[in-house]
Amino acid sequence: MSIGEFALIDRFFRALGAARADVALGVGDDAALLRVPEGAELVAATDTLVGGVHFPPQSTPASIGHRALAVNLSDLAAMGARPAWALLALTLPQADEAWLSEFAAGFEALAHKYGVALVGGDTTHGPLCVTVTLLGLVPRGTALTRSGGRAGDALFVSGTPGDAAAGLAIEQGTLSAAAEARAYLRARFALPSPRIALGERLRGIASACIDVSDGLLGDAGKLAAASGAGVEISFDAVPVSEPLVKTVGAERARELALSGGDDYELCFAVAAGNVTALTQQLPPELWGYARIGELRATPGAAVVRDGSVMQFSHSGYQHFG
Amino acid sequence: MSIGEFALIDRFFRALGAARADVALGVGDDAALLRVPEGAELVAATDTLVGGVHFPPQSTPASIGHRALAVNLSDLAAMGARPAWALLALTLPQADEAWLSEFAAGFEALAHKYGVALVGGDTTHGPLCVTVTLLGLVPRGTALTRSGGRAGDALFVSGTPGDAAAGLAIEQGTLSAAAEARAYLRARFALPSPRIALGERLRGIASACIDVSDGLLGDAGKLAAASGAGVEISFDAVPVSEPLVKTVGAERARELALSGGDDYELCFAVAAGNVTALTQQLPPELWGYARIGELRATPGAAVVRDGSVMQFSHSGYQHFG
Repeated sequence: MSIGEFALIDRFFRALGAARADVALGVGDDAALLRVPEGAELVAATDTLVGGVHFPPQSTPASIGHRALAVNLSDLAAMGARPAWALLALTLPQADEAWLSEFAAGFEALAHKYGVALVGGDTTHGPLCVTVTLLGLVPRGTALTRSGGRAGDALFVSGTPGDAAAGLAIEQGTLSAAAEARAYLRARFALPSPRIALGERLRGIASACIDVSDGLLGDAGKLAAASGAGVEISFDAVPVSEPLVKTVGAERARELALSGGDDYELCFAVAAGNVTALTQQLPPELWGYARIGELRATPGAAVVRDGSVMQFSHSGYQHFG
Repeated sequence: MSIGEFALIDRFFRALGAARADVALGVGDDAALLRVPEGAELVAATDTLVGGVHFPPQSTPASIGHRALAVNLSDLAAMGARPAWALLALTLPQADEAWLSEFAAGFEALAHKYGVALVGGDTTHGPLCVTVTLLGLVPRGTALTRSGGRAGDALFVSGTPGDAAAGLAIEQGTLSAAAEARAYLRARFALPSPRIALGERLRGIASACIDVSDGLLGDAGKLAAASGAGVEISFDAVPVSEPLVKTVGAERARELALSGGDDYELCFAVAAGNVTALTQQLPPELWGYARIGELRATPGAAVVRDGSVMQFSHSGYQHFG
């Protein structure tokens, strides 16, 4: 890239996202200067999207910009944190003004929605690769973790997992769907909605939480293992969307919900004594979550149906096999 | 990559760098939890190294691990900050145990030296690309920036710029050198020493500071422009190393020092009234820096020799032309 191309890129990223009073110095110096309020703990996550691996080549730039931030927002949601500041490392094959403009717009819209300021970054030349580091805040000592669960805790998941995996399959041409379902499922992959508000409200209620990005069964298993427990999920309790059921049938829909990826939903455990507080303070029909099983003393992750344990060929989605 | 390969990678990155009491939760959850002390400002920088762009294909994994952290350490040094926590986003064509082990060792050694804990990351499959986000701390309101300089301030640079550009040219086979100079210059490219201690000591003394990564002349020009000034550098005052002079001659050495890249030195301005404090508190012969010119009212960056302005074909190194 030429100096002119770098100037072009700078123009797009100089003031992206929300304006925040706690940014003492943003994009444009050697580093950003940020003010963490007293009593807050800093929460930090980083995630990379690689072109052709984490999104198909034909993905829109707006979707790539959205998803690069969304996958990190989902990590912060799982901690119960409120997002604040982002750094964007963007590797590009060439500086294309239309591409950059759309990418920035996709990133910007989501950043504004969650009050995130872009405070730094680096643009480099190479194969398309986007790494966002997201920083957020949580009152000290209140963050949700994967490890706080105990056998007997009820297990929940937000939203309707499996949609994104179907949306990606549609995008890749390996699944067909009716027009309406097709639009819905594709958007669920291309423009996921991180559960920031739910994560924040789960502080003090949930015992453990994880973001569902690699498949519900596998991620629930990770939460359970970190909590020194196992997990049992009721197949028929797994929530699935109507468009997904219409497209692949109820059976396959729940399989996709358990083993698909890219959902960016929250899976969380709640101690038996807190379940009433959960459902009263966060009515499931308003907040969009469902009880799917429980943590158990026996290690491992099992899916049960009509009292029998089901077999799954793989317990979690891998971004590449 | 397979699940087994991810497990292999996890093993290398689970507990890398310094152990820090302010890490409430490190690698292994959805995000890290970090404690910023009262009165401190958070400093955040991110930099990417792309294989074949920012380092030659034959670079050792240890050098890549070292440099990925060093380039970010240098950004924090330029702010006068003390580094604390790093997040590592590593995109790899394949999980090679020997490669990972050497990369981790290179990263680890430098992280330990500067008290940096690796607190999070993401490993993905794709063309080799390393993004490090580094977080550090500075007493509130004391950070150095690029914009605090004024016309009349004296301008300094640390170390001996130009060495790294020569080292890279040797690495690429476009420059030859005697054995001793060759080893020195290659190490200056492969294993740069960020000026963390100097940056911290410059707080309260320097008016402005920038890290020299894209060529001294261009970076000094950026500092000047951010300060609403221009800069004049005396060609003969630019410090160059003996191995560089032996290899390319004194004239070409200073040209490389002004226009080369990858130095990771500090260029800083000091108000006339503070120059005595600088040289008394930080004796240049101990701290390794030299006065090279001054900020001036006239915009732009000029190099002067024997009273005449010299012409440079390019004012700063671009990682790709």
